[in-house]
Amino acid sequence: MSYSTLEKTFHRLAQLGHAEAMLSWDQHVMMPPKGNAARSKAMAELTVLRTEILQDERLSDRFDEAEQEADLTDWQQANLREMKRSWQQTRAIPKDLVEAQSLASSECEHAWRTLRPNNDWAGFEPLLQQVFDLAGEAAAAYQDALGADRGYANAYDALMDQYDPGTTMSRIDPVFDRLKAELPGTLQQILERQSQRPTPNKPERPIAITQQDALARALMSTLGFDFDAGRLDQTAHPFSGGVPADSRITTRYDEHNVIEGLMGVIHETGHSRYETGLPQAWTSQPVGQAMGMGVHESQSLFFEMQLGRSRPFIDAIAPMVRQHLGDDPAFSADNLHALYTRVEPGLIRVNADEVTYPSHVILRYELERDIILGNASVKDIPERWNQAMSDLLGLDTRGDYRNGPMQDIHWPMGAIGYFPSYTLGALNAAQLHAALLRDVPDAAERIAQLDLAPIFDWLSRNIWQQGRFNNYDDLMTQATGEVLNPDYFLDHLQSRYLSA
Amino acid sequence: MSYSTLEKTFHRLAQLGHAEAMLSWDQHVMMPPKGNAARSKAMAELTVLRTEILQDERLSDRFDEAEQEADLTDWQQANLREMKRSWQQTRAIPKDLVEAQSLASSECEHAWRTLRPNNDWAGFEPLLQQVFDLAGEAAAAYQDALGADRGYANAYDALMDQYDPGTTMSRIDPVFDRLKAELPGTLQQILERQSQRPTPNKPERPIAITQQDALARALMSTLGFDFDAGRLDQTAHPFSGGVPADSRITTRYDEHNVIEGLMGVIHETGHSRYETGLPQAWTSQPVGQAMGMGVHESQSLFFEMQLGRSRPFIDAIAPMVRQHLGDDPAFSADNLHALYTRVEPGLIRVNADEVTYPSHVILRYELERDIILGNASVKDIPERWNQAMSDLLGLDTRGDYRNGPMQDIHWPMGAIGYFPSYTLGALNAAQLHAALLRDVPDAAERIAQLDLAPIFDWLSRNIWQQGRFNNYDDLMTQATGEVLNPDYFLDHLQSRYLSA
Repeated sequence: MSYSTLEKTFHRLAQLGHAEAMLSWDQHVMMPPKGNAARSKAMAELTVLRTEILQDERLSDRFDEAEQEADLTDWQQANLREMKRSWQQTRAIPKDLVEAQSLASSECEHAWRTLRPNNDWAGFEPLLQQVFDLAGEAAAAYQDALGADRGYANAYDALMDQYDPGTTMSRIDPVFDRLKAELPGTLQQILERQSQRPTPNKPERPIAITQQDALARALMSTLGFDFDAGRLDQTAHPFSGGVPADSRITTRYDEHNVIEGLMGVIHETGHSRYETGLPQAWTSQPVGQAMGMGVHESQSLFFEMQLGRSRPFIDAIAPMVRQHLGDDPAFSADNLHALYTRVEPGLIRVNADEVTYPSHVILRYELERDIILGNASVKDIPERWNQAMSDLLGLDTRGDYRNGPMQDIHWPMGAIGYFPSYTLGALNAAQLHAALLRDVPDAAERIAQLDLAPIFDWLSRNIWQQGRFNNYDDLMTQATGEVLNPDYFLDHLQSRYLSA
Repeated sequence: MSYSTLEKTFHRLAQLGHAEAMLSWDQHVMMPPKGNAARSKAMAELTVLRTEILQDERLSDRFDEAEQEADLTDWQQANLREMKRSWQQTRAIPKDLVEAQSLASSECEHAWRTLRPNNDWAGFEPLLQQVFDLAGEAAAAYQDALGADRGYANAYDALMDQYDPGTTMSRIDPVFDRLKAELPGTLQQILERQSQRPTPNKPERPIAITQQDALARALMSTLGFDFDAGRLDQTAHPFSGGVPADSRITTRYDEHNVIEGLMGVIHETGHSRYETGLPQAWTSQPVGQAMGMGVHESQSLFFEMQLGRSRPFIDAIAPMVRQHLGDDPAFSADNLHALYTRVEPGLIRVNADEVTYPSHVILRYELERDIILGNASVKDIPERWNQAMSDLLGLDTRGDYRNGPMQDIHWPMGAIGYFPSYTLGALNAAQLHAALLRDVPDAAERIAQLDLAPIFDWLSRNIWQQGRFNNYDDLMTQATGEVLNPDYFLDHLQSRYLSA
C-alpha cells in the first residue's frame, strides 16, 4: 500500500522530469533568444516543485512502511531502494546550501565565459575556490546523511555517487594508477609506429551539410535509431536528450571537418539506444532509469570506439560514406580507418583520441579529489596541471590557462566528481566488448555485414534492460563475469594500435 | 500578506502553464509519432497538478483574507478578482464530472474522425448526445457555484463564460438577431454586384514553399513579429501557441494555393501580437492574461480582415508579393484585392469569407444554446441545420452530414459555448477599427506606407496592455466609447463590398 503510494509519487516526479527534459531540449535547439528568461523561470519552478514533492514529511513513514511490505517482487524491491536513494539525496543538503551552490556556480560559469578567452586565471581562481568550498560542504552533508547506507569512505565518494552510483575511490584509485603506469609507454610505442606510416588524407573539398546530414541519418538507422521515436537536430554543442519514448539527439556539422562529425553522431546514438532500450514497464520509476554516467558513457563509447572505429565496421560503412559524400580518396576504407585511429597528444580533452583521453581525465580526477579531501587547494591547480600534462602526455602547458585548467565547463558549473565517468565509460566499454566477443564469437563477421542485431540484443539483455535493478558492480559482474578491470581497455589499445 | 501568497501560487500555476504550452507546441510541431503516449501522460499529470494546487483547502481562507487587505493597488485588486474566478471555476465542477466529460469527449472525438468521412450521423448522434448531456450538467454546476458572482442568467451563460468571460446571452441575442435580419439581404446585394465583375485570376503556376515562407516571414516582420522572441513553423492545422516572451505560430503552405496561406499567417500574427503585447509586469498572473476568445479573435481578425484585406494594405504589399513570388498577373494589387474580398456562400465554416462567416456561427450558436437550455435536442440538429443554411445562405445540406453538422471538431471535443467567439471577434474588430480611425485619422495613409506603428500603438494601449484589468464591456467602452455594437461590422461590409 505504502509502496504503491510511493510509486505514484515517483510517477509524478517522472512526468515533471519529462517536462524538464523537453523544455531543456527546446531551449537548446528551438527557442528564440528572448525566450530565455521566461524559460529559466519555468524550469526553476519545476525543479522547486520536484524538490517539494520529495521533501513531503509523510514520505519518511511511507518508506518505513514500504520496507515492511512482504509481497514486493525483486524489481519492486530494487525500485524501493532507488526511490529511497533519490529521496535521501534530496533531503541530505540544506536548502540554503543548495541556493548558495546554485549562485556560486552561476557566477563562476558566467565569469568563465569571458575569463577563459582572456586567459585570466587570477580572476577565475577566487570564483572557483568558492565553488570548490561549497562542493566540499555539500560532500560533507551527503556523507553525513547517506554515508552509512551507501558505503562512502570519504567526502569525494559522496560526490561521485551523485553522477555514478556505486563508484568509489577505492574502486577507481588502483585502476587509474594502473593506467598512469601503462599509458605513457603505450603512447610512445603507438606514436613511433604511427610515424612510420603515411599521414592519412583529409577530404579535398568542403562537404555540404545536407550530404553530411543524409549520411548521419543513414548511419543512425543502421545503428537502430528509430526516427519515429526520436529526432536528430543541429546544435553548437551536441547532446543526447529527450525521454526513452522520444529520443532527441543533436549534432554539429562542419563543411571542412566531416570526419569528427560522423563519430559524434555515432556516439550520441549510443547514448540514445541505451535510454530507448531501458525497461519500458519501469519507464517512470527510478529503477527504470539509466545506471549512471559511467555506464551511460560506456554505451556511447561502445558505439563510437569499440564498434564505430573498428576495422570491420569502417570497411562496411565506407561504401555508404562514398555514396553520400562522393568519391574522395579520403573515403577509402583504409584511409578512413587511419583517420579514425589517429593518435596525437593535445591540450584539449574533448578533442583527444582514446589513447590520450584517460590522461586528461586522471589529472582532473586527482586534482578534484585532493582538493575535496583537503590535500590540495585551488591555487595549486596550474602547477599540478602542468606537471601531469608533462608526465602523461609530454606537453608543456605553463601560462596557457585557457587551454589548460580553464578549458572545461564542469568545474565552473559545479560538476565535481563527474570527470571519472568518461574514463570509466571507456573501460566499461572495452570490458563489455570483450564479453560480447566471448558470447557472440562471430561478432566481427556480423559487423562486416552490418548485421548488428546480435550486438544490440546482447547490449539490451546485459545493460539496457537491466535499468538500475542491480548496482554497478553486480551489473558488470553479470554482464562480463567480473567487476571493473582495466586490462580489457589496455588489451584493446594493444590490439587496435600495436598488433598486426 | 495573503494576497502575496496567492500571487506566488498563481506564479507557480503560470510556470506549469508555460510547460504545458511548450509541450503542446512540441507535440504538434516537432514530436515523432511514437512519442505521443509518453507526452500525453506527462501533460495529463501537469493538468492534475494544477488542479490540485487550485483545490488546496487553504486557498479559501487566503481569498477571504486578501479581500480584506486595504493596501492593494487597482491592478492587484483586478488580479485578485481574476485569481478568484479561476479558483472558483476549478472548484465548481465535481471531479467525477470532469472525468466523465473527458472520457465522453475523447470517445466522441475519436469516433468522429472515422464517422465524419463516412457521413454517419446515426453513429455520431448518441455519442454527441452524451457530450451535450454532460456539458449541460457542468453548466448547471457552474451556474450554481458562480452564477450569483458572475451574473449568469442561465446555464448557457455559464458555458460561454468559460471561453469568453463576460459574454452573456442577453448581450449576444439582440446582436445576432440583427445580423440574421441584415446579412441575407446584404449577401444578395454583394453577390449581384460581384457577378458584374470579372472573376479574379489565380496564379498560373505552383509557387515553391520556400518562396511562400520567405514572403510570410517578410510580412510577419512588417506586422511587427519579432523573430528573436518567436518562431514560425509548418503544421497541418495552423495555430498560435507558446508564451508571451516566446510566441510560436504555425502555418500551412500549399504550392497550389498561395492566396489563403498568406492570410493565415497574418491572422496568426494578430493572435501573437496580442499575447506578446500583454502587460509584462503581470505576465505570470491571471490579470496579465488575454481577455477571452472573443477579444483574442478580434485581434487576429483586425490583422486579417480590417488591416490585411484593406485596399491600402494590399496596394502596399503587392510589390513585396511579386518580389518573393514572381511576376504573375494574379499578383497585381487590383487582382489581389479582388481575390481577398471574394464572397461565396459555401458549406464549410473555416473556408467562409467574412460576409457569410457569421451565418455559420449563428446557426451553431442557436443550436447549442437551445440544446443546453432544453429547448431542442441533439436529434433535431440535422433538420435545423438545413433550415438555417437555407434561410441564411441559400444552401441545401440535406443528407450531407459530413459537410453539415459533422464538419467541426468543437462539439465532439466538448467545446460548447465557444462558437460565438468567432463572430464576436469579427464584430469587435470592426468596432475597434472604427474607433482607431477616429483616434488616428491618417491611418489609411500610414498603412499605405506600411508605417504601422501608430496602428499597433493604438491596439497596444487600448487592448494588449489592458490584459484582464477591466471586464469585457468596460474594455470595449474605454477603447471605443460603447459596448458591443454590430453596426460597425455591418457598416464595414457596406463600405468594403457595396460602396465605390
